[in-house]
Amino acid sequence: MKIVMMGAGNLATSLGKALLRAGHDMAQVYSRTMASASALAAVLHCQATCDLGALTGDADVYIIAVKDSALRQVAAQACAGRAAGVWLHTAGSMPIDVFKGLVPHYGVLYPMLTFSKAREVDFSVIPTFVEYSDATAQSAVEALAGSVTQRVYPLTSADRRYLHLAAVWACNFANHCYDVAAQLLATRGIPFDVMLPLIDETARKVHRLTPRQAQTGPAVRYDENVIAAQARLMASVDPQLEDLYRRLSTSIHRAAQSPEKNDPKHSQQEE
Amino acid sequence: MKIVMMGAGNLATSLGKALLRAGHDMAQVYSRTMASASALAAVLHCQATCDLGALTGDADVYIIAVKDSALRQVAAQACAGRAAGVWLHTAGSMPIDVFKGLVPHYGVLYPMLTFSKAREVDFSVIPTFVEYSDATAQSAVEALAGSVTQRVYPLTSADRRYLHLAAVWACNFANHCYDVAAQLLATRGIPFDVMLPLIDETARKVHRLTPRQAQTGPAVRYDENVIAAQARLMASVDPQLEDLYRRLSTSIHRAAQSPEKNDPKHSQQEE
Repeated sequence: MKIVMMGAGNLATSLGKALLRAGHDMAQVYSRTMASASALAAVLHCQATCDLGALTGDADVYIIAVKDSALRQVAAQACAGRAAGVWLHTAGSMPIDVFKGLVPHYGVLYPMLTFSKAREVDFSVIPTFVEYSDATAQSAVEALAGSVTQRVYPLTSADRRYLHLAAVWACNFANHCYDVAAQLLATRGIPFDVMLPLIDETARKVHRLTPRQAQTGPAVRYDENVIAAQARLMASVDPQLEDLYRRLSTSIHRAAQSPEKNDPKHSQQEE
Repeated sequence: MKIVMMGAGNLATSLGKALLRAGHDMAQVYSRTMASASALAAVLHCQATCDLGALTGDADVYIIAVKDSALRQVAAQACAGRAAGVWLHTAGSMPIDVFKGLVPHYGVLYPMLTFSKAREVDFSVIPTFVEYSDATAQSAVEALAGSVTQRVYPLTSADRRYLHLAAVWACNFANHCYDVAAQLLATRGIPFDVMLPLIDETARKVHRLTPRQAQTGPAVRYDENVIAAQARLMASVDPQLEDLYRRLSTSIHRAAQSPEKNDPKHSQQEE
């Protein structure tokens, strides 16, 4: 398929590379600045532009992979006169209907991973969630997603909001917890890599146990002496993080005493 | 070495099994209840007791692996009359001097991992932090730790407080973030296992990048529209978690604008 990529950030770069490897014709890269458009276009061996008016009109698929806050504006400007193609966006938090009334064939292709330019990812295992306005969009988005990953799931915009929020917790917030750990260790000159076996095991555990079942530590036991001492230590490093420490400990303790919502895949393990 | 294990929880179980496999003579298991003492003693093929007065007096090493809040009391009761052995505890948050004045040879053996009874762990890769009162304790704790893991590091009580607090963030708090994600997905009937590639990649990323460098998502970009919409969604599921969502987002944004403390192993990658 002949594809135009709008956006040149981490996701646009990873997805563009995967599409190129899958044999698609990457026709053009758009970005707000010519420098970033050219950088990705060089990788994808195609034309660069920073002018939405200069987009080709004969692509099969137009992918908008810009930051969420710019999506509506880019769609409004770029769709006009290019209604023959299928229009897709990649934003977990945005509904399909940002394209409504602009073009007839549109959809969403949301690859749920954390993308950094410094890191190559294996696209083939990334769960990718798709949605479509009609049969034309369905066949395009399913073919496109299926060409780069084995894990394609249909998901409505309503459900995707929950999925994206869950991803913020499981990825961004968990990573922030790693960051606080790194800052604490750096305070004492302890290298962060001593923490990696624990981080890996914490991730591996939830392949077999639900996170609720896997929880350990002073908060789930509500060991008040340890919590009070750690809160004081946290305050000496960073008072705002002490507040977060206390609230997270309370939240873990509250969760431990609450019934766990049913996971369709783990229901037999539930307590 | 002839070893007495006090405690029969997750850590006592994992460590006891690893010591048995390493060829040590597991002599006795103590626990507050006979039922839990017997359960672990059966695994370790040794005697069980729920009476601290009945502990053997001729062990080489006594390991106290009870919950932190019970440690001082168990030590005070158990040490008396058994001063020839080396006394160790396994608590990340407790100082070495809980043994001070009770016995001459004592120390700490803190294996930093998350232990659940339902899950076997490979002890050999667990970073284990040791501390000792004298040369006798040093040779015992280094030999013992070295017999079950390749990663033994000396660490003072003062530094271990930071390490343990870092472990609470990187493990317990990160796992709580997974738990919130699981609850959000369960609300919509989406199986938790779609989240596993993202969880794994988030953990893998910090093997190469610092967590600060690895951060992505709406909070680090401070995408106010997405944050406001997600906060509303979070509130509809659980108002207390909305509060945590907002505070974690703010904390990520604040961290992104702050200088990162230097990690001795990653200093060349720092920005």
